Amino acid sequence: MSEGGNPMSAVVMVSGGLDSATVLAMAQVQGYRCYALSFDYGQRHAAELDAARRVALRRGAVEHRVLRIDLGGFGGSALTDPSIAVPEAPSAGIPVTYVPARNILFLAHALAWAEVLGARAIFLGINAVDYSGYPDCRPEFVHAFQQLIDCGTRAGVDGAGPRVEAPLLHLTKAEIIQRGTELGVDYGETVSCYTADDQGRACGRCDSCRLRAIGFADAGVQDPTRYR
Amino acid sequence: MSEGGNPMSAVVMVSGGLDSATVLAMAQVQGYRCYALSFDYGQRHAAELDAARRVALRRGAVEHRVLRIDLGGFGGSALTDPSIAVPEAPSAGIPVTYVPARNILFLAHALAWAEVLGARAIFLGINAVDYSGYPDCRPEFVHAFQQLIDCGTRAGVDGAGPRVEAPLLHLTKAEIIQRGTELGVDYGETVSCYTADDQGRACGRCDSCRLRAIGFADAGVQDPTRYR
Repeated sequence: MSEGGNPMSAVVMVSGGLDSATVLAMAQVQGYRCYALSFDYGQRHAAELDAARRVALRRGAVEHRVLRIDLGGFGGSALTDPSIAVPEAPSAGIPVTYVPARNILFLAHALAWAEVLGARAIFLGINAVDYSGYPDCRPEFVHAFQQLIDCGTRAGVDGAGPRVEAPLLHLTKAEIIQRGTELGVDYGETVSCYTADDQGRACGRCDSCRLRAIGFADAGVQDPTRYR
Repeated sequence: MSEGGNPMSAVVMVSGGLDSATVLAMAQVQGYRCYALSFDYGQRHAAELDAARRVALRRGAVEHRVLRIDLGGFGGSALTDPSIAVPEAPSAGIPVTYVPARNILFLAHALAWAEVLGARAIFLGINAVDYSGYPDCRPEFVHAFQQLIDCGTRAGVDGAGPRVEAPLLHLTKAEIIQRGTELGVDYGETVSCYTADDQGRACGRCDSCRLRAIGFADAGVQDPTRYR
């Protein structure tokens, strides 16, 4: 469908967190018309979706959609299964906050939309430096998904498949914050905490909060996070 | 999670059609405990889902789940968009019944379940011989998805990722029907028609009906399809 689409449009996955808000700003500064996409997959931290809506609106995304992902109560992650505790300390190996096939599911939905739009790119905010041990936040993963697009979709077979863009892949959290600050991202609008409350206020103790706080300190940028 | 799962379990995608009913029987005869998975993605032919429930029940699947896939009204296919007509004659190239990223979405959901179950395999009924021009029904596609599992999931990184099994890939429709008939598949329970009515009765004219009817004729098996 690429012939009917806008080659300078992009689907940008916006979670409501710090990383994806930065990615949205980076895609926009490259000239992309951005279609923001978020997911409701039964995550405990629904405050993220409110943050995603704020970020997409303030940054002037062409459109923002929230798709429901039906995991049928599979469980298997501390982020979706109330019986698994969210850890406060980093763990060895892949953490219990890993959600089975999450980024594959996210990318598959983004790809469906990108193909219908004729979009040139899919942006996502994964990061291999501070990636906390998730296998689906590595360069190999991005490469493998690109291969899948190029052989498994109509646009890909036509040589016009969207490119998977992960511009944060090799940046530290501090570098991400510095780049976003240059681009005018208001990080006070974003929520990173795994257990944020209804108002989006952070716990300050979970893995995600710790990485974020260290990032602001290392970047020399004042931390606008609202803690409870 | 594989250590807690059953290594001889498999997730089997069951659409309600002829091919996937055959695949379910093939997986069972290999000794797998089969978890049947179907999708409601706004397809016009909802009679398929009734057929999927019948097939999973009669074949003794351990469990059958129907997951809703939210395509947010993206459209882009004759199978989900009422403004695009379902063709009665085969077309050149990739047909309008192509659903953007469909098999990627299906496999991503199956993978999430497989990983939680600790399943050893994911079975799907794609077919490269009578595949009607879909890019996501080719061996390259299966290979690319396997690569994605092996590098992008916890189970895959641990060397215990589920194998993508597409046992119909190189079979003709007639060979599929012969194999299923040997295994006792009741094809009268299955629905292939793109525009089946509420009772699952087929039009006899769409691409899918034509391939099916030719398959029974070539296999020398009496066609149990209920036409309207």
